[in-house]
Amino acid sequence: MAAIDLNCDMGEGYGAWRMGDDEALAPLVTSMNVACGFHASDPGTMRRTVRLARRHGVAVGAHPSFPDRVGFGRRDLSATPDEVRDDVTYQIGALWAFCRAEGVALRHVKPHGALYNLAARDERLAAALCEAVRAVDPSLALVGLAGSPMQDVTRRAGVRWVGEAFADRAYAADGTLVPRRAAGAVIRDPAAVAERVARLAQEGRVVAVDGTELAVEAGTVCVHGDTEGAVELARAIRERLAREGIEVRAPVG
Amino acid sequence: MAAIDLNCDMGEGYGAWRMGDDEALAPLVTSMNVACGFHASDPGTMRRTVRLARRHGVAVGAHPSFPDRVGFGRRDLSATPDEVRDDVTYQIGALWAFCRAEGVALRHVKPHGALYNLAARDERLAAALCEAVRAVDPSLALVGLAGSPMQDVTRRAGVRWVGEAFADRAYAADGTLVPRRAAGAVIRDPAAVAERVARLAQEGRVVAVDGTELAVEAGTVCVHGDTEGAVELARAIRERLAREGIEVRAPVG
Amino acid sequence: MAAIDLNCDMGEGYGAWRMGDDEALAPLVTSMNVACGFHASDPGTMRRTVRLARRHGVAVGAHPSFPDRVGFGRRDLSATPDEVRDDVTYQIGALWAFCRAEGVALRHVKPHGALYNLAARDERLAAALCEAVRAVDPSLALVGLAGSPMQDVTRRAGVRWVGEAFADRAYAADGTLVPRRAAGAVIRDPAAVAERVARLAQEGRVVAVDGTELAVEAGTVCVHGDTEGAVELARAIRERLAREGIEVRAPVG
Amino acid sequence: MAAIDLNCDMGEGYGAWRMGDDEALAPLVTSMNVACGFHASDPGTMRRTVRLARRHGVAVGAHPSFPDRVGFGRRDLSATPDEVRDDVTYQIGALWAFCRAEGVALRHVKPHGALYNLAARDERLAAALCEAVRAVDPSLALVGLAGSPMQDVTRRAGVRWVGEAFADRAYAADGTLVPRRAAGAVIRDPAAVAERVARLAQEGRVVAVDGTELAVEAGTVCVHGDTEGAVELARAIRERLAREGIEVRAPVG
Repeated sequence: MAAIDLNCDMGEGYGAWRMGDDEALAPLVTSMNVACGFHASDPGTMRRTVRLARRHGVAVGAHPSFPDRVGFGRRDLSATPDEVRDDVTYQIGALWAFCRAEGVALRHVKPHGALYNLAARDERLAAALCEAVRAVDPSLALVGLAGSPMQDVTRRAGVRWVGEAFADRAYAADGTLVPRRAAGAVIRDPAAVAERVARLAQEGRVVAVDGTELAVEAGTVCVHGDTEGAVELARAIRERLAREGIEVRAPVG
Repeated sequence: MAAIDLNCDMGEGYGAWRMGDDEALAPLVTSMNVACGFHASDPGTMRRTVRLARRHGVAVGAHPSFPDRVGFGRRDLSATPDEVRDDVTYQIGALWAFCRAEGVALRHVKPHGALYNLAARDERLAAALCEAVRAVDPSLALVGLAGSPMQDVTRRAGVRWVGEAFADRAYAADGTLVPRRAAGAVIRDPAAVAERVARLAQEGRVVAVDGTELAVEAGTVCVHGDTEGAVELARAIRERLAREGIEVRAPVG
Repeated sequence: MAAIDLNCDMGEGYGAWRMGDDEALAPLVTSMNVACGFHASDPGTMRRTVRLARRHGVAVGAHPSFPDRVGFGRRDLSATPDEVRDDVTYQIGALWAFCRAEGVALRHVKPHGALYNLAARDERLAAALCEAVRAVDPSLALVGLAGSPMQDVTRRAGVRWVGEAFADRAYAADGTLVPRRAAGAVIRDPAAVAERVARLAQEGRVVAVDGTELAVEAGTVCVHGDTEGAVELARAIRERLAREGIEVRAPVG
Repeated sequence: MAAIDLNCDMGEGYGAWRMGDDEALAPLVTSMNVACGFHASDPGTMRRTVRLARRHGVAVGAHPSFPDRVGFGRRDLSATPDEVRDDVTYQIGALWAFCRAEGVALRHVKPHGALYNLAARDERLAAALCEAVRAVDPSLALVGLAGSPMQDVTRRAGVRWVGEAFADRAYAADGTLVPRRAAGAVIRDPAAVAERVARLAQEGRVVAVDGTELAVEAGTVCVHGDTEGAVELARAIRERLAREGIEVRAPVG
């Protein structure tokens, strides 16, 4: 039976500021990536987010970032691999403590924003992430861009890999994502997105902008939580998957 | 045989800034309290400090603080007990990850600066610290001011307690520390400080400024690392303790 | 003719996070207090907020805070008067630069949150604020709690004073605000709030919870921007003041 | 008569942390670049540093940085030109307030670290700096790498330009600095450095590593304050310049 994980970034408020509707999305996903204080979140938010995961049986992962709160972790930073390894170690540990305190297992690590994008193409940063993950807990999975060089680095390092696909993002024929600012880069029709998720789960394929069929080996699909209509989109995906008899479950556990 | 622990705050640099001579002090103490990024330290510094502890067989504890880097955690902050609990949970976890990555056990938690002082007299904050410690790892000891109300809170909470005495600080007749700004508050003569440590270890006593003999149930004595002559002072203490046949060892482990 | 200023805290987003509906409120107020980066805001937000003020002809003031972003500046911090003076100097200067760049005059300074409340009762902090304001620009007004000891400090220091009243907050018979958590502390009926503003402007009076008529010498009334219904409330006030022929204008300029 | 400015980065401590010996260096330089809180410094340090400048009659400039305290502003950040313009506006304003409070003129702006290096080769960032400087105070000079494209951008923008040379850094034949990590990149012999400063002041020339004579149009020479022997080096330069009858003075004012 085909299966796929739906993941969502959560706990991205900060102090008095809110972001996304975690309460509404938590029942609709099977994994969440919890911000760890470097681009978003704070200790109180982390605890509440882990409790939310427990309540809904959602698998918890760390969502570490470059230290850039004002830029929401979206800006490239020329941190060294050692700095990345140590920043990520710190953030995994911080979230681990809340998981432990709340009786929830920590399952995976998914880098955020600019760190995610850089690690997908810079093998030294991917290796730094692997080093952090393996030294803290070798059972943790590392989540990154499906089909990127990061996948090979992760396998060489003996770290469990989960490739991520983006159902609401257009793919170029070479398998890369169409840049977010380009026309048609973001797919907004819930039915079309749900269709893409179903094909990813059943066939491991996605159709590129030029019609090419791409093979995408993805264990998880990202559901964006901070976009308008996120909840409706997630519902449409869940309904479609249920109709097709595709299981939705966390990849690790 | 009498025994005492000598502890020192370490890893209190930040980025390009240095503080204290950790390399020189590490061989002279048996416990270190490692800053966790809220008043001092950063991920790279935390890793280097944990490695230093491993090299010298020094027991590692977390040294969490209020979030106040520019004030070095020395300013009172009206954080709620829940905020304190969550901030401390976060910091313990962050340090735990480096301990785990470096194959070192995390042994204790000692609050820093204003949080230390407030927790010594505010039972709600002491309870918040206990809650954080117990939920993350019930085997961790909590270090606080010997003889303070925090001791009772800790015992009621079922958390292992280690009372701390200050050999280079004058005590008032009621057992409190003479405020740092008062004349004679800080004892600078190494021989006098070493003598006080020896009496604490052998008899559990310290002489107050008015000559009163105070009973002080201390499992550890603080060696300040950021004062001038810190290394010489630590050496004088170690020599005196060796001469008296007093064992120097970490309280937990 | 009676006149009153309506002020609102603005620019309290931070990076990717939003707070309040500044665009909707700006046309309804005559002064705004712009966050300066210590409890909220960032350089880009400050510029946009100053531009918004210019577009609507709203008087701009600095809204300095203790350095406590995660606590939104709402937590007491035992900063020294010198630290407060310097933190406030820094924040005034930062906002001044955006005013200057956008061709807008900086008119006043209103401390935020915990700093506002502490300065209202601690004369040393009030004096520190005066020192900062006077040294940077002696023409700036200082806004604080109407009737508080801060008013006398400000006058002695030769700093222009603007007392602030809260039309949506209940007053105790002694002229202090009923603590926010108490029942009835916040008045939510727009008509009732508008009525209070009108009486403050026309008679300098407000009715306390026990029916006592209190004299309140207020040059400005705060319109909260981050509460639900803030825009409707501000509209109700403006309509009532227009009906009564009360002028709404900034106090300085 | 030949003349040159000697500038030094100052006020780069942070909270309880110290860096450099500003007290010893201030009497030896004619300009200082004062950190503004984004890579180093804090409000109290900024005030003390401005006072130090006043005491020694040293010209004061702002030393704005990317927001990266833990990386000391040495890491590239993919900030947009608008973000750079606003971050720099903020920092200039913050320092301006201390200058104003202490009765000292603000004379120039010199970007720090990674921002300095990126602005020297990225014309959009150089233009963003010009925009910030000109909008806040058109009389401020902008200091950047002598001979870099930034010079042309600055002139086109109508901003006063001061080119900076590095007397203790080796130059390649193409006029760029030899990367700091390369052998021979840093010149440590005080006599050799003093000789280079004298030639820069008298002839506008520096000898590259391969013996080429390079024309370097520099209005100021950087004296590094955070390296060992900084004070001795500055003294050697001053003595040499005095012996040659070269005037040492700030470029603006």
